[in-house]
Amino acid sequence: MVADWEAKAQAKREEIFSSIPKEWILPSVPSKEEQKDVTGDFARQYLSDREVEITETDAVGITAKTTTGEWSAVEVTKAFCHRAAIAHQLLSCLHEIFFDAALASAKEMDNHFEFTKKPLGPLHGLPVSLKDQFHVKGVDTTMGYIGWIGTFEGAQNAKNYRTHESLMVQELRELGAVLYCKTSVPHTLMSGETVNNIIGYTLNPKNRLLTCGGSSGGEGALIGFRGSPIGFGTDIGGSIRIPAAFNGLFGLRPSSGRLPYEGMANSMDGQNTVLSVVGPLATTSASLTLMTKSILSRDPWLHDPLVHEIPWRDSHYDAMKSLLSSGSKLSFGVIRNDGITSPHPPVTRALEFLTSTLASAGHEITPWTPPPHIDAITLTSSIWTFDGGADVHAAFALSGEPPSSQISSVYGTSPSLQASASQIAAINVAKRKWQKAYMEYWNSTSKVSGTGRPVDAVICPVAPFAAARPGTYKSYSYMSVWNFLDYTGVVVPVTTVDKGVDAVDAGFQPIDEADRECQATYDPEIFDGAHVSLQLVGRRLQEEKMLAIAEYVGSVLAEAK
Amino acid sequence: MVADWEAKAQAKREEIFSSIPKEWILPSVPSKEEQKDVTGDFARQYLSDREVEITETDAVGITAKTTTGEWSAVEVTKAFCHRAAIAHQLLSCLHEIFFDAALASAKEMDNHFEFTKKPLGPLHGLPVSLKDQFHVKGVDTTMGYIGWIGTFEGAQNAKNYRTHESLMVQELRELGAVLYCKTSVPHTLMSGETVNNIIGYTLNPKNRLLTCGGSSGGEGALIGFRGSPIGFGTDIGGSIRIPAAFNGLFGLRPSSGRLPYEGMANSMDGQNTVLSVVGPLATTSASLTLMTKSILSRDPWLHDPLVHEIPWRDSHYDAMKSLLSSGSKLSFGVIRNDGITSPHPPVTRALEFLTSTLASAGHEITPWTPPPHIDAITLTSSIWTFDGGADVHAAFALSGEPPSSQISSVYGTSPSLQASASQIAAINVAKRKWQKAYMEYWNSTSKVSGTGRPVDAVICPVAPFAAARPGTYKSYSYMSVWNFLDYTGVVVPVTTVDKGVDAVDAGFQPIDEADRECQATYDPEIFDGAHVSLQLVGRRLQEEKMLAIAEYVGSVLAEAK
Repeated sequence: MVADWEAKAQAKREEIFSSIPKEWILPSVPSKEEQKDVTGDFARQYLSDREVEITETDAVGITAKTTTGEWSAVEVTKAFCHRAAIAHQLLSCLHEIFFDAALASAKEMDNHFEFTKKPLGPLHGLPVSLKDQFHVKGVDTTMGYIGWIGTFEGAQNAKNYRTHESLMVQELRELGAVLYCKTSVPHTLMSGETVNNIIGYTLNPKNRLLTCGGSSGGEGALIGFRGSPIGFGTDIGGSIRIPAAFNGLFGLRPSSGRLPYEGMANSMDGQNTVLSVVGPLATTSASLTLMTKSILSRDPWLHDPLVHEIPWRDSHYDAMKSLLSSGSKLSFGVIRNDGITSPHPPVTRALEFLTSTLASAGHEITPWTPPPHIDAITLTSSIWTFDGGADVHAAFALSGEPPSSQISSVYGTSPSLQASASQIAAINVAKRKWQKAYMEYWNSTSKVSGTGRPVDAVICPVAPFAAARPGTYKSYSYMSVWNFLDYTGVVVPVTTVDKGVDAVDAGFQPIDEADRECQATYDPEIFDGAHVSLQLVGRRLQEEKMLAIAEYVGSVLAEAK
Repeated sequence: MVADWEAKAQAKREEIFSSIPKEWILPSVPSKEEQKDVTGDFARQYLSDREVEITETDAVGITAKTTTGEWSAVEVTKAFCHRAAIAHQLLSCLHEIFFDAALASAKEMDNHFEFTKKPLGPLHGLPVSLKDQFHVKGVDTTMGYIGWIGTFEGAQNAKNYRTHESLMVQELRELGAVLYCKTSVPHTLMSGETVNNIIGYTLNPKNRLLTCGGSSGGEGALIGFRGSPIGFGTDIGGSIRIPAAFNGLFGLRPSSGRLPYEGMANSMDGQNTVLSVVGPLATTSASLTLMTKSILSRDPWLHDPLVHEIPWRDSHYDAMKSLLSSGSKLSFGVIRNDGITSPHPPVTRALEFLTSTLASAGHEITPWTPPPHIDAITLTSSIWTFDGGADVHAAFALSGEPPSSQISSVYGTSPSLQASASQIAAINVAKRKWQKAYMEYWNSTSKVSGTGRPVDAVICPVAPFAAARPGTYKSYSYMSVWNFLDYTGVVVPVTTVDKGVDAVDAGFQPIDEADRECQATYDPEIFDGAHVSLQLVGRRLQEEKMLAIAEYVGSVLAEAK
């Protein structure tokens, strides 16, 4: 007999599938073993040349054409809807499909342009995909919970059900963006793999034997497949950067208080020791800049009480750009191993490739010996489980569905003891002290950087692996340390796994048993072809500077390849 | 028999007193009944004309002379040390006296000036007093706790005892300020009256029958007496603004994340739902501007992980200044009664005087009907007691001293149940929703303000009373609502109580029993002469704008008097 929750999940799964126009249904879907990589030519076989041209243009290129009337919003939207529909069939990456509403709004935009000869805003006609935490009128927000289907965040008959829109959604519409789909997440959002009982497991388009990452995994898979040019995820422990990295994308984790989270669904909402932040993932770094600048042009601090009044600072961005264009050298710290989990061979090779490329370009690679990260990671584990899983288990209980193994390994299968006010306060104090120690360490690097300034950015793995094999994502230390510090992180794609080069490290010396297990998941045959990306980390609220550096690093890497 | 804690308190009390040079000891101290007001001519009788001239000059005037060599740092410092010594004898407002260290550092500054002909910084030679939460090398930080005497925040034999300095102290030294005393606080900091078992009860210099306010009460009393030109307090529920108001001063409560709290002692440290903030109190608004701008010139975001990178914005300050100098009108909302506690007659008169003065100057007085404040106040009570008093009772237990009645009325005499992580999270969510509702209300006032902009500032009482009679301070609603919202508040002195004008309101209709009790504490004979001040409230992180408005309002009031 099928459990009630399974029946509900199946109905929702079928409803999603049935939102895809008949003519876009694939005649057959190859197994992941027979077709690991479904990007590039494999994807293109289903598309017209024009659709390929449109969907393989980045957000900057698209808006250059849509804001000048060269491309119509309808044509662009339709091309991305088509490619997104194919993505979902191959990868299981969508939670909500609303192509009709998207085409209607694109049509309105075209009418507006025809009438006024002016774009609606800087994002006129740009399709933007959204992680399934954003509330969009007319559709559900399930966040992967069966109990949230047909409800507002689990509440039955709520008057804001399918009527409320998150602030970011309102702003995107004002800027001219076209919204057309919401993407998959691991239920609870607390995993680097994207799996839930509604849509199952979202695959990595470049290598379907691996995860697309999480928790903004559907975003990563969809944009990686070019079913979207740019989209938004959220990040409390890597959830923007992991899927950006695993799908060969650029992704920005801004500091908290920069972009508006107001009116979004969340897990453990109200835990305010480490805040989840919202940020973009895209195919180019310039797209991230366009998007961040556009959102900030809307003065979000007037509508989100947690956003600081810090407008986009051209002066910061331009200062870094002109430093670089004048041939001045930057200084980069490098974290090759954080002492908690060792990187797999392809990640180590990416680190060496990027640092040697930057050194060849005349930049300094500065020793980086900060306070031990393990202290921050230990505190982070406590923070993520302050409520003993009360919030997530309440959400599971709505339908009776079981948590995935990825989640039960962190939160168990029922709630446990909660932290008290005193315990939380003590952790907040310990956190602030560690942040202070780290910031003073960073200040101190001006003495050794060779530039007279503290280190400009730290180069760091995103994860120990290029992407995780299903069920093996356990180590978040390369990510969550920066959430703990609330620093700015930008992911940059560096290379791909090459089984002919990236051999297993026969002499590997594990730090501990967990490290041994993690390293043992590396298999060149399985990982071959997967994207390998790294993150560039800057200090708190340094979005403009870090985006300028990321653009530069992307261009230097492109030349070096 | 004297209890151990009493003996320790007495020894400390005597040690403080013995730090006053013999020649500054007053021959006799009149009782508060025989000499209510010890400011003005009463204070001047103990001082030379030159000392009066120096100590009755504001921080802007002092630095104009000390940074140009017209006045020596030593002479200025000595004058304020003298007047502070008198203040302590009349008011009991000092916790730590370090005149010798101050004079030594002033001497160094004079030497520096003599040698370089340049000031050390914008605050060269300016005496600055500090609330006893600031750690200063060489002296204790007791925060009024007997158990903290001779310790570092209660820890015995701590290596940072008397060696650690709070970040703000370091920055003040770099800017050229002279530090010379630390001022009294209510133990726990959680009261609008300043009382502890070490120094007793700090009196209001303008009317010693009343409290000087709290928790930065020693600052208020000292600066009100002109024993300091400017000093720093902290504010989690009114603790800068209350003593500023009760002593006829200007005081700034900035939003959190603007000025650095790093390295200071605190109560319930790590409670991060409503953060305590640090800010200046001074005799003029221009002094607050000088100080805020000076501190921000030190880039505190590089040394305090909780400070946002928002430099002093001349553009904001100048925009408001030029709006005003061009004769453009502003729009002010007014809160005459928050529906929780009704103001006493002098406060109501001050509200009418200020609003009619502003209306006469051509400004709009806009109806102000925000979301009911009671919802924020109810949540605030929960926030202040998240830990059930665990932190403050642990501090009392170090010595066995009893809490004052002002404190036991809030925290009892022993710890009670703590809030859980889920309860705290739920309050954080409720808080954010209320902040959102309030901000959208404020946005909406552009439709009725008559300026096309939302209301520029809200005029609001500081407390229901001009100052409280000892033991009667119970209502914090006019204050803590702005901490809850994290808005910018500046206190402006408006008038003084006049028993000939401010009669008891015979037809007073109380809101409830607490309101009746509060109103019943008003007695024109007792309150006569007390300062009556109001606060000007702006939105989050609007320090520059609000300081410009406060300067203007101060000047308009001066003309109207």
